[in-house]
Amino acid sequence: MNGPLKVALLGCGTVGSAVLRLLQEQSDDLAARIGRPVEVAGVAVRRPQHHPDVPAELLTTDAHALVTRDDVDLVVEVIGGIEPARSLMLAAFEAGKSVVSANKALLAEDGVALHAAAAKSGVDLYYEAAVAGAIPILRPLRESLAGDQLSRIVGIVNGTTNYILSRMAETGAGFGEALAEATDLGYAEADPTADVDGFDAAAKAAILASLAFHTPVSAGDVHREGISTVTASDVARAAEIGCTVKLLAICERVSGSADADAPVDSVAVRVHPAMIPTSHPLASVGGAFNAVFVEAEAAGQLMFYGQGAGGEPTASAVLGDLVAVARNRVTGAAGQGPSGYADLTVRPMAETPTRYHVSLDVADKPGVLAAVAQEFAQHGVSISTVRQTGHGEAATLVLVTHSAPDAALSATIDALREMPAVRGVTSVLRVEGLS
Amino acid sequence: MNGPLKVALLGCGTVGSAVLRLLQEQSDDLAARIGRPVEVAGVAVRRPQHHPDVPAELLTTDAHALVTRDDVDLVVEVIGGIEPARSLMLAAFEAGKSVVSANKALLAEDGVALHAAAAKSGVDLYYEAAVAGAIPILRPLRESLAGDQLSRIVGIVNGTTNYILSRMAETGAGFGEALAEATDLGYAEADPTADVDGFDAAAKAAILASLAFHTPVSAGDVHREGISTVTASDVARAAEIGCTVKLLAICERVSGSADADAPVDSVAVRVHPAMIPTSHPLASVGGAFNAVFVEAEAAGQLMFYGQGAGGEPTASAVLGDLVAVARNRVTGAAGQGPSGYADLTVRPMAETPTRYHVSLDVADKPGVLAAVAQEFAQHGVSISTVRQTGHGEAATLVLVTHSAPDAALSATIDALREMPAVRGVTSVLRVEGLS
Repeated sequence: MNGPLKVALLGCGTVGSAVLRLLQEQSDDLAARIGRPVEVAGVAVRRPQHHPDVPAELLTTDAHALVTRDDVDLVVEVIGGIEPARSLMLAAFEAGKSVVSANKALLAEDGVALHAAAAKSGVDLYYEAAVAGAIPILRPLRESLAGDQLSRIVGIVNGTTNYILSRMAETGAGFGEALAEATDLGYAEADPTADVDGFDAAAKAAILASLAFHTPVSAGDVHREGISTVTASDVARAAEIGCTVKLLAICERVSGSADADAPVDSVAVRVHPAMIPTSHPLASVGGAFNAVFVEAEAAGQLMFYGQGAGGEPTASAVLGDLVAVARNRVTGAAGQGPSGYADLTVRPMAETPTRYHVSLDVADKPGVLAAVAQEFAQHGVSISTVRQTGHGEAATLVLVTHSAPDAALSATIDALREMPAVRGVTSVLRVEGLS
Repeated sequence: MNGPLKVALLGCGTVGSAVLRLLQEQSDDLAARIGRPVEVAGVAVRRPQHHPDVPAELLTTDAHALVTRDDVDLVVEVIGGIEPARSLMLAAFEAGKSVVSANKALLAEDGVALHAAAAKSGVDLYYEAAVAGAIPILRPLRESLAGDQLSRIVGIVNGTTNYILSRMAETGAGFGEALAEATDLGYAEADPTADVDGFDAAAKAAILASLAFHTPVSAGDVHREGISTVTASDVARAAEIGCTVKLLAICERVSGSADADAPVDSVAVRVHPAMIPTSHPLASVGGAFNAVFVEAEAAGQLMFYGQGAGGEPTASAVLGDLVAVARNRVTGAAGQGPSGYADLTVRPMAETPTRYHVSLDVADKPGVLAAVAQEFAQHGVSISTVRQTGHGEAATLVLVTHSAPDAALSATIDALREMPAVRGVTSVLRVEGLS
């Protein structure tokens, strides 16, 4: 066994300190698994005085100097955000170091350029921890399913919103109340925008879609809707039709094209709340757990379930990657980066087929259902089920559509809002996973 | 892009013909993912006349000549069984070819020697398809979780028995009736021994334990009980305590040791039917599906779910491995085989801690519960819950124990059978996953 491999750790928050602890506790096992011991060369932080548990001689504020140090072999980036993470990563590649990252925002924004830089230097860029925490999902997509054709990924990949929606379902609370509870318990950050508005899930969706479809997809390509508009009424309506509301990250390969001149497959990537049947494997994923449901042509349906966040689970994923890049370092190989050879078009949301659940307050007069149905038909949307409850002034129509382009569905809703017979559109939510 | 990589396919049954079809259908994608096209060099079968769909010039009965042909780069072994699969695999390694296999029996019996032979020749041996069909589980264990410490794997890894037990729970049928139905529907083979008696699950458990604990475990090390002794009464008793009966493959790292002279961790690997709470993620895995539940120190609880058998799902796993070994061939690298460095002792079943559910017919006389409880206490087994139903001559005692060495539990049962106050032991089954 040769001398130790040296690791530069960038960032020492919840994840970084868990990585540091596990590197020490498991040093014998890691050495046996890698073929060489692993040692921490340094830990770059902004405020060294905030890290009394880290040996002082390891701490540095000069991250750039650390990643380019001659004795550093591997870099673990758990700072998050775009800069300085990007510059540091590029400097690491330039200096011939492989990088393990947990940075979903950066990978989703600039994955192609970063992979190109890593490939140019013949080093690795691994980031299993960026999506769904401890759940092994990127490696299975990249390797285990490399001989299959993926058709669809549906994931619950944000624990904060899943906790909020689970609480709304359990207690009947509105969004604001459930968010306040999540904040109190530490499940939501002081500024919950990244989670609640779907930015976090959209970054993860971009990464999943890129790997699944061998096509570069960035966060900007992802249609994104958050959960702040989900009402207690939406959640109650979902329960009435045997569904539950989840924030889903959906990556699909869509056959054909709306453009007859270019009849090729495209990919549709979107994040939005949706009703799913309670019998769907994702429906029972509660609280802060994550799960990713995958459909492939030959493999059929697969599901991966586990803890999507937290210091230790995320550190587990980081260390798994660290062992892989360290082994590559020992053997002189480099893992293959993701391939973008398929380079499919990203289909705009307006052209993506979806299904809607719509709940309307209507006057219970003869002809109202006919008029409503006519409005759907005029937009080319066919109705799967319709249910009328109540009578007289307080009747309610609940409709579930068949699949139609999202623009046709939203145009139908706009038209319904203008109909005199419709007193109010009380709930509109997409539906996924219904047969 | 250089010339094609050539693949020798050994066996062309359900899995082999699916592999052959997918290799052809996806040849462009596979070439893009690997960096070189893949071509089938030949297909070794016993009776060429039974394979009219395979081009005649590819068929051969001389498997040995095929695997050692100079132009063959990679070998896919889907014959199954020990011989001639083992000799052919060794010949392939000797000739410098990497092998992808779906052969759980062979890997569980002789994995160490086969890996050693592959390593000696600097080639790969991959076998994701051997456990849980299309579900990526071996690669996640070997790579994604390589930086973590696994404590426990609990899997439903045999679809036939899971189908039979699911039907027994749904219909109240006995084992024989449910087996007959499974046979009629093609879910059970004409000779169901390998499935029903747990041999198939035990081989998979050995493979899982070897990878999870970096310790060589062979099929012979696995304690094995099948489901033919599970009665309709067992299934009904399970439902009464909010449980369901599953055939589980359980691989555990057990701290300490029964032997005070050797107080080190050991591994316990076992396959047996058990009651699990209906709230457990594995409880809802129905029909012919498989799922593997993993507990790791940092990652926490993970679950992998999907189709555990069938030509296409198994072929998906074979092709994922084929892409990996083909990439290694292109880059001149070899993947790292599993490591046995930890080399933990395999703990005998008698010393493995388990919990029992016991249902007794007793005479409802004063002192019976005390006498029964005393019998448990004398064997050092403490009782978690006890419930008495009925009165007079037809009383029933239902007990769930705390964890105790399996030998103590089974000795307690033997003693109970001898007690005059116990009219009959109507159900004995282990319990897993209760808090």
